[in-house]
Amino acid sequence: MSIATNDPSNAFIEHFDLPPLCEGILDGLKFTVKDNIDLAGYRTSYGSPTWRDAHVAPVHNALCVDQLLAAGARCIGKVVADEFTYSLDGESFYFGTPRNAKAPDRVPGGSSSGSAASVAGGFADFSLCTDSGGSIRVPASLCGLWGMRPSLHRVSEAGVLPFQPSVSTVGVLADRFDVLDRAMRVLLNEHTTNIPAPKHIVVLQDALEIADPAVRGQAETALQQIADRSGITLEPVSFAEIIGEDAPLNACNMEGLRDLQTAEFQSTVGNWIEACKPELGATFAMAYENVRTFDRVAVLDNIANCEHLFKRINAFFTEDTVVCFPTTPKKAPLKGSLNTLEAVMEFYDPTMTITAFSGVARLPEVSAPMLTVEGCPVGLSFVAGHYQDAYLLNALKTLIY
Amino acid sequence: MSIATNDPSNAFIEHFDLPPLCEGILDGLKFTVKDNIDLAGYRTSYGSPTWRDAHVAPVHNALCVDQLLAAGARCIGKVVADEFTYSLDGESFYFGTPRNAKAPDRVPGGSSSGSAASVAGGFADFSLCTDSGGSIRVPASLCGLWGMRPSLHRVSEAGVLPFQPSVSTVGVLADRFDVLDRAMRVLLNEHTTNIPAPKHIVVLQDALEIADPAVRGQAETALQQIADRSGITLEPVSFAEIIGEDAPLNACNMEGLRDLQTAEFQSTVGNWIEACKPELGATFAMAYENVRTFDRVAVLDNIANCEHLFKRINAFFTEDTVVCFPTTPKKAPLKGSLNTLEAVMEFYDPTMTITAFSGVARLPEVSAPMLTVEGCPVGLSFVAGHYQDAYLLNALKTLIY
Repeated sequence: MSIATNDPSNAFIEHFDLPPLCEGILDGLKFTVKDNIDLAGYRTSYGSPTWRDAHVAPVHNALCVDQLLAAGARCIGKVVADEFTYSLDGESFYFGTPRNAKAPDRVPGGSSSGSAASVAGGFADFSLCTDSGGSIRVPASLCGLWGMRPSLHRVSEAGVLPFQPSVSTVGVLADRFDVLDRAMRVLLNEHTTNIPAPKHIVVLQDALEIADPAVRGQAETALQQIADRSGITLEPVSFAEIIGEDAPLNACNMEGLRDLQTAEFQSTVGNWIEACKPELGATFAMAYENVRTFDRVAVLDNIANCEHLFKRINAFFTEDTVVCFPTTPKKAPLKGSLNTLEAVMEFYDPTMTITAFSGVARLPEVSAPMLTVEGCPVGLSFVAGHYQDAYLLNALKTLIY
Repeated sequence: MSIATNDPSNAFIEHFDLPPLCEGILDGLKFTVKDNIDLAGYRTSYGSPTWRDAHVAPVHNALCVDQLLAAGARCIGKVVADEFTYSLDGESFYFGTPRNAKAPDRVPGGSSSGSAASVAGGFADFSLCTDSGGSIRVPASLCGLWGMRPSLHRVSEAGVLPFQPSVSTVGVLADRFDVLDRAMRVLLNEHTTNIPAPKHIVVLQDALEIADPAVRGQAETALQQIADRSGITLEPVSFAEIIGEDAPLNACNMEGLRDLQTAEFQSTVGNWIEACKPELGATFAMAYENVRTFDRVAVLDNIANCEHLFKRINAFFTEDTVVCFPTTPKKAPLKGSLNTLEAVMEFYDPTMTITAFSGVARLPEVSAPMLTVEGCPVGLSFVAGHYQDAYLLNALKTLIY
């Protein structure tokens, strides 16, 4: 195991120091890189020692790494990812469980577990990481960090290991909003001015109903405070009203995204696993069995439905809308508690019902560390229309500060 | 060499017969698959025997292949791609030059050279292939076929080898418009109804000026016929008018896309080449030397400019606009003539100036086989706004039939 020593966050695969390439708006900031994103001269593990040993070290950084270094940031290490980034809990069979600094007896969330732990522990200002089904948003929520998943394909994926090409995004976890804002603007190549102010704060009722009562209560209170301060009236809306069809929020997950994700994962990591038969961690092995035996042709209608949902959801957004809901329906589970199918389902099903909204609609989402539930952090999410990433960041500045 | 025998098209790597998985709107149609797209049980070569031998056969088809098989089409073979799909000419050092049936002494164009030859030669109704810098559009133009590059990331890339993630698309070459239309609708999961009719036929003047006089003359005649028949007045517009800034069309290529493509190619194929030092064909080796020594950090401003150009170009489109221009500025070069730097530049520079328009703006483009220049085919291109793929197909039906 190549886990770095003397690491109270249990987040680092390797510590090093890549100095900035130029001065820029990220001067003085330190960042870590999730271990599915290439760093020149270091083997990328994808959360799997077998994958790491079967692949050579890249000669080039991922393009997104160079963007950050060229904007003044300093890269201080490579951090743990869940095995093949195919998890939301952050308990790696191989690399252990990175520390959730604000709830040390609980999981950090995954798959960007080391990213979250390195920032939450105060070792880095931000971390460059990836999100498909919630891998940035879930750790942001459970560790009390800012996290952004941008619109699909707005940030370059060159040098990021292929995962679920129609779903995967590159984004950031950060300890402060202004750090998230600056790092994301660099990655997005975003210099838009003349951005409209938010006028519609839409509260997605289905997500509140799925959430634990304590999470729901905290979210309603925080949203009311935003409404009071901004003078914008909250607009409670159901998912059925958003898409103009009689369907629950879970349609995004169960009649679309999950099947698309599984089918695409078969073609990326699945092919490699079938060819190389690597050792698999116990939890991943259980999840992968569903991937291996998955009949994608039987669900092509669900996969096609993603396009339909994308269109209906996006038609709802105007240039001055944000849609809000708790990022996760629950606080972080206790470490080691996700060891039965029942416990896994109780965590994953409601979580993925919520995270699938932005996933299926290719939308930018920011999780803000605004809720505290029974002593644990939970995030409040803000979502904007497709490619309205700059508007979303600007809206948060307006609404929260 | 594993080139199929008894193949007058010189297009096939392997002949086989994968029957349809279901009945559907592609019943009775035969297709080929470019050799950078996975077919279960066959090694994918990426146009490079060294790559092929270094990788195992995939267990799963690419998702896009399964979509076509499930819609009633039959897959009849794997066809030649240029080395690492990094070329527009279609003369493979390893697999030879697939036959341009309508201009047999000329190159078929690349990198989807085998795709074009298998369709132009009458062996397949359509071919599943990819386009980043023009790899569908250029062979469509030079071989007299229909070709569509969809909006960026509208078709799943799971099981398609990573190339230039911010630019690459999966699309189709076909012998008839109705085949292109049906195959693309399957890949796009597109069932939109209530599509507006085209009202604005915009003619991009910069592209006409770059084109050879004979190509320009033919394009102007064909466009006038479309205008006369449809009753829609042609609107000549310069690129500067489209983006509202004083810049030539070549800004898309030279102040944006080409640098983004080179940087992203470093991180995908480049890393592998540097690690494995494979044998490289002479032409590719020459091109790759520029990739290897490319300083991406020095051009990050150009890469960022892609986002700016995307926004400006897309702001020009309404829901009833098509922008038209010759797909390529020239007819196909003679086989074997692209053997000096001067000849290569004379073909590539004006071609990529035109193809970069849709590339940088992530737009759908269809090349229609409508021009004949000195006995050779040349395509006429139609471009619509981002994600207006269904509108574009519909507009062509209205304008051309």
